[in-house]
Amino acid sequence: MTTDKLPTRSENFSEWYNQLVIKAELADYAPVRGCMVVRPYGWALWENIQQALDRRFKATGHVNAAFPLFIPMSFLEKEKEHVEGFSPELAVVTIGGGEKLEEPLVVRPTSETIIGSMYSKWIKSYRDLPVLINQWGSVVRWEMRTRLFLRTLEFYWQEGHTAHATAKEAEDETLQMLNIYADFAITDAAVPVVPGVKSEREKFAGAVRSTTIEAMMGDTRALQAGTSHFLGQNFAKAFDIQFLDWNNQLEYCWTTSWGLSTRFIGAIIMTHGDDQGLVLPPRLAPIQVVIVPIYKNDEEMGRVLEVAERVKKELGAFRVKLDDRKELTPGFKFNDWELRGVPLRVEIGPKDVQNGTLALARRDMPGKAGKSFVPQANAAVQVGEMLETIQASLFERALAFRKANTSEPESYEDLTRAVQKGWALSWWCGGAECEAQVKEDTRATTRCIPLDQQGGEGPCIVCGHKSSRKVIFARAY
Amino acid sequence: MTTDKLPTRSENFSEWYNQLVIKAELADYAPVRGCMVVRPYGWALWENIQQALDRRFKATGHVNAAFPLFIPMSFLEKEKEHVEGFSPELAVVTIGGGEKLEEPLVVRPTSETIIGSMYSKWIKSYRDLPVLINQWGSVVRWEMRTRLFLRTLEFYWQEGHTAHATAKEAEDETLQMLNIYADFAITDAAVPVVPGVKSEREKFAGAVRSTTIEAMMGDTRALQAGTSHFLGQNFAKAFDIQFLDWNNQLEYCWTTSWGLSTRFIGAIIMTHGDDQGLVLPPRLAPIQVVIVPIYKNDEEMGRVLEVAERVKKELGAFRVKLDDRKELTPGFKFNDWELRGVPLRVEIGPKDVQNGTLALARRDMPGKAGKSFVPQANAAVQVGEMLETIQASLFERALAFRKANTSEPESYEDLTRAVQKGWALSWWCGGAECEAQVKEDTRATTRCIPLDQQGGEGPCIVCGHKSSRKVIFARAY
Repeated sequence: MTTDKLPTRSENFSEWYNQLVIKAELADYAPVRGCMVVRPYGWALWENIQQALDRRFKATGHVNAAFPLFIPMSFLEKEKEHVEGFSPELAVVTIGGGEKLEEPLVVRPTSETIIGSMYSKWIKSYRDLPVLINQWGSVVRWEMRTRLFLRTLEFYWQEGHTAHATAKEAEDETLQMLNIYADFAITDAAVPVVPGVKSEREKFAGAVRSTTIEAMMGDTRALQAGTSHFLGQNFAKAFDIQFLDWNNQLEYCWTTSWGLSTRFIGAIIMTHGDDQGLVLPPRLAPIQVVIVPIYKNDEEMGRVLEVAERVKKELGAFRVKLDDRKELTPGFKFNDWELRGVPLRVEIGPKDVQNGTLALARRDMPGKAGKSFVPQANAAVQVGEMLETIQASLFERALAFRKANTSEPESYEDLTRAVQKGWALSWWCGGAECEAQVKEDTRATTRCIPLDQQGGEGPCIVCGHKSSRKVIFARAY
Repeated sequence: MTTDKLPTRSENFSEWYNQLVIKAELADYAPVRGCMVVRPYGWALWENIQQALDRRFKATGHVNAAFPLFIPMSFLEKEKEHVEGFSPELAVVTIGGGEKLEEPLVVRPTSETIIGSMYSKWIKSYRDLPVLINQWGSVVRWEMRTRLFLRTLEFYWQEGHTAHATAKEAEDETLQMLNIYADFAITDAAVPVVPGVKSEREKFAGAVRSTTIEAMMGDTRALQAGTSHFLGQNFAKAFDIQFLDWNNQLEYCWTTSWGLSTRFIGAIIMTHGDDQGLVLPPRLAPIQVVIVPIYKNDEEMGRVLEVAERVKKELGAFRVKLDDRKELTPGFKFNDWELRGVPLRVEIGPKDVQNGTLALARRDMPGKAGKSFVPQANAAVQVGEMLETIQASLFERALAFRKANTSEPESYEDLTRAVQKGWALSWWCGGAECEAQVKEDTRATTRCIPLDQQGGEGPCIVCGHKSSRKVIFARAY
């Protein structure tokens, strides 16, 4: 709780973000370099994200389990691209119980290897397939430049790991989970993501093909908000995950993995936030409605609080907080809850008590435009509708912003300018050299080849070779 | 899924336990020494335990958060008893991102120190108090002799950490959380625990006073199933957690911590399990009801499955599984679900289709005694009542077992015999020497001084000095 003003987003987007995360008490810096503490308000948001995803995972037949934090170093070395991708980022336990370990243990950066070793033990026959397991937990990657939620040494996520009898089934699973991420992002977080395929250069270390949902932040940079990987038989071969098929032939499984992390909280902050602070989508907000009582003296206070308590009870179907802190003014409380992004504020003063009314103030429309007055009698219905309106309006606004900041450059020169102030959607031949050229010239990378292609063909924006698919180039988090 | 028979409990309780955990697919050995994989069936049980506890935590004003996995070595050294207690058990990260770390990082064995350092930053005034935070996660203790769920290098738990303005408030919190654990154990797990206070020798490293819930396992040994600690100002002084009180005086906070772990799954297995396998309490069972269709040919199968599907739908308020695996006989399925401890089995055969009936079979009463026939029309009500009956009956049985195996020895010689086959409740002077004597002679330790004392006084069972409280001596897990 602080009264220092945030920098505005146009002034300094990056400082706006850093200060907002701290001031809204979503997270804090831990005393270990690069690590974060997710504070109760931030964790409540994560718990809502967890429930929204977990429900979808279970509805599609997935179950949760828990695999160890520690992985023998030798396991990582079994998949060549995987170890190359992750070895610069490992935290290594070398001492246990006061003794030097014979084989160092890696703190998991991701769990394909340890889970693969268990699948090899559990899977014997096609009857055991598919195996559809998810895990909620944290992983560690030794990042040098860290930012709260966006990139920390330890972060929280879920990682799904599945094994299948056929390549088709594994590819369908990869796509199904990508669609679940997209549906969650759009429906619950009001974040209009673009699902697509990663380039060879940007894919997961060890995958055959990586898919992603990409979101545009308030500064027009892209953020990879969730990924789903088709791993082919790479890990099955490295960990000997074999099964007897219908013809009693021993075959390698086809596997997938998919993950979404606390990074998504960063996406929510930077998609919806404004210069007053957070703006949280109602479906995920830890507090959906805050009631602020307004009074001048003790006599008024008594009457107002009585109504406020009753309204709170009537709004029992929502996540409601009555802010009855006595030492603070209503104005202070308004600012405080705006900073924290509570979607809807209910104000109750002596006149409202007299008239049987409430004032509603929308977080997404500050000022008069977002204010309305409703009868107390009908509060629950009105509030429910208002929250749905806010949810829809946040999505529409973010989608309009993304569209307004996405261009289709006509020339390479256009492209280099376009990626300085937004996303560029361009024909691309698929060549790694063209991709590298853009990165070198602009620092923009290929974000994804959107699944939704309009068809047709055109010249690669870099080399001019004919191409039939467009890619998004953008600077990214 | 395996048909090898379990050893009986009387034959070899320890092997019965080890094999049961594996065969019922609750957990498996990980490829890292002393670590476990919690398989989906075991994790679903843990998720139900989590929900039962989390609901109680939130109802009493607690919120969840997440603190880092890594703790600077120097933090642990700030509280003298704490570091002495934990340093033999630490896993230490010495390498990060390919470089030797300047200060090694400990993988948390418990989080008092790192959380204390954050509380010191967050807490400024009495207005910030109390702080009531819980964390779900895993911790690591480098144990040499490990057993699935009971003692593993990494285990899953929740740890609550609270800070208060007065000693009284912190002591009340300690007791409140102990009562929550006891209520959960009794009401949801049907495990009749004894809440009490730990001796100085057995208390948590760094606590002023530790309280515990102790449970009797099927071999009469005791298992510490949850603990709640009053930490006094020990950690507040070590981490400088100070606040300005109502008189603007700077004071140290009073703190508590409390935890319950996946060890509790071991308690459930060893309290209720029988020679056929697990017996899970209905309130926590991942599958409460399994429906097994019985038929001889395809024609019968069609009719039976149609009813089975309908009954499954009607039992939608419960966690129901319809076992329609075609390659397995009903007898095999009966054994399989008995091994997995599903509380209630519904059998549906061609006669049931004809007569509109169902056969119900209680897991806690194998054979005819536990079998009944009910009309399909009323299935949901009948099943609901039956599950409640099973829940109550498991508790009564476990309580009767504990009473039957708890004695009040008259002499020291009696005591040494009593602890070989059960618990001994005895007057105890509170002296560490008497406690040590019993341990040396019998390997039994003081489990707790029960909160519920019958009053009066008598001679310490070891030294004969007058005492006004009784303690439980027992061999323990």
